[in-house]
Amino acid sequence: MESLIILKIGGNVIDNASALDALLRDFAAWKSPKILVHGGGKIASQLMEKLGVVPKMVEGRRITDRETLDIVTMVYAGLINKNIVAALQSRSCNAIGLTGADANLLTAAKRPVKDIDYGFVGDVNPDRIAASTLAKLAEAGLVPVLAPITHDGSGSLLNTNADTIASSVAVALAKIFRVHLVFCFEKKGVLRNPADEQSVIDFLDEDLYEKYKAEGVISAGMIPKLDNTFAALRNGVAEVRICNPEGLKEEGTGGTVARLRGN
Amino acid sequence: MESLIILKIGGNVIDNASALDALLRDFAAWKSPKILVHGGGKIASQLMEKLGVVPKMVEGRRITDRETLDIVTMVYAGLINKNIVAALQSRSCNAIGLTGADANLLTAAKRPVKDIDYGFVGDVNPDRIAASTLAKLAEAGLVPVLAPITHDGSGSLLNTNADTIASSVAVALAKIFRVHLVFCFEKKGVLRNPADEQSVIDFLDEDLYEKYKAEGVISAGMIPKLDNTFAALRNGVAEVRICNPEGLKEEGTGGTVARLRGN
Repeated sequence: MESLIILKIGGNVIDNASALDALLRDFAAWKSPKILVHGGGKIASQLMEKLGVVPKMVEGRRITDRETLDIVTMVYAGLINKNIVAALQSRSCNAIGLTGADANLLTAAKRPVKDIDYGFVGDVNPDRIAASTLAKLAEAGLVPVLAPITHDGSGSLLNTNADTIASSVAVALAKIFRVHLVFCFEKKGVLRNPADEQSVIDFLDEDLYEKYKAEGVISAGMIPKLDNTFAALRNGVAEVRICNPEGLKEEGTGGTVARLRGN
Repeated sequence: MESLIILKIGGNVIDNASALDALLRDFAAWKSPKILVHGGGKIASQLMEKLGVVPKMVEGRRITDRETLDIVTMVYAGLINKNIVAALQSRSCNAIGLTGADANLLTAAKRPVKDIDYGFVGDVNPDRIAASTLAKLAEAGLVPVLAPITHDGSGSLLNTNADTIASSVAVALAKIFRVHLVFCFEKKGVLRNPADEQSVIDFLDEDLYEKYKAEGVISAGMIPKLDNTFAALRNGVAEVRICNPEGLKEEGTGGTVARLRGN
């Protein structure tokens, strides 16, 4: 099976122009088929503030109303996505910027209203990922750059978590490629001590993860990302790496590597 | 040669939600390979106003400074493009929304500074249109939806006239397909009398165009569109139609049809 790398970059990396530029330079140079998934960053919040749109929060969770959906569509699918594509093109990487609506790549369900109505937020339907279309684009030498926007198939766009897009796409493509999923954020990796950037845990499997969790070594904030990581691994993804832009040199050798036991 | 339709829709159509919806319904139903090119409309100006960005004009021409470029990128490539894509997807039309930066489809040159510096405005380089990529997408059953944003190949996005994108892409694809280019705007067609919507000129060739121009029958505002039209026809496009959304029924039978003499 051919290898394919899926790199997810978080908002903190996008907000730092020079870090982003260096990262895109490294990414452009990778030889294997690859997909970039980007998050949002602060630009959408800044634009909301300028426009006098007050973020709606319920129990600490942001609600995506119609106005917010329009703003994240503009910022994520327009400004951020197209500037990343233009930067990659200038480095001879044949990027193609897409949302989940484009080529019907990712259909999501509007999150059902229980206690909270999250508004136009979509949860990716794992059975409605156009893996073969993504594979064809990658095999044609194109490099999909995915914005964290999906659609419901009935004409509405939906705001969708970028980590979830990255892991869902990784699982869907694991039937076609040997998939390496990389979560790139502002920290060097999973840390034993959140205050010490040098305390990177080099390797995790399920046993080590459970052990570190039981010992309280892994910080609470990392748990959703790592649950996501092991879910992806159990569903066929070969390897997940968690690192900062430094860790991406040489197609990703730094940070924390997670694999299933024995793999 | 297989037929391919390129439909360009102008700002006035985009600004009218019900007209746009009806048009996308008709477009989605067309059986032949097709490409949609959309303009901007008033949303970008409205957003500029809300953000307190004063449009910069020199000799009546709008200047695209950095702030304006960011806004048109958000509105054209984000908001308008992705909502059109989602609407087409809901009608089982496998749309894929793209700018000229995506898949390196259209490279433009920043307009040279002579008397006026237009800022980040790009003139399409006809030798740098990825016609074979567009053809492959169309042949794979995908329907490209092109936003009026291009790139310079060196990392900068550029604001580009949508009519020019439509006619440039039409000419580039005329080597591969029998291309029908349709300019859809708010008027029924080319009118003998701009005040009379019923005075549509059904047919134009070069002789008739020159005759009507000489007689002052065709209004000044139509001349750039028609010069563009005959340039496309001379460069291999089979037919150009100019009409309003009504004229698009049954894959386009209304409005003004322009062809080269004898074709």
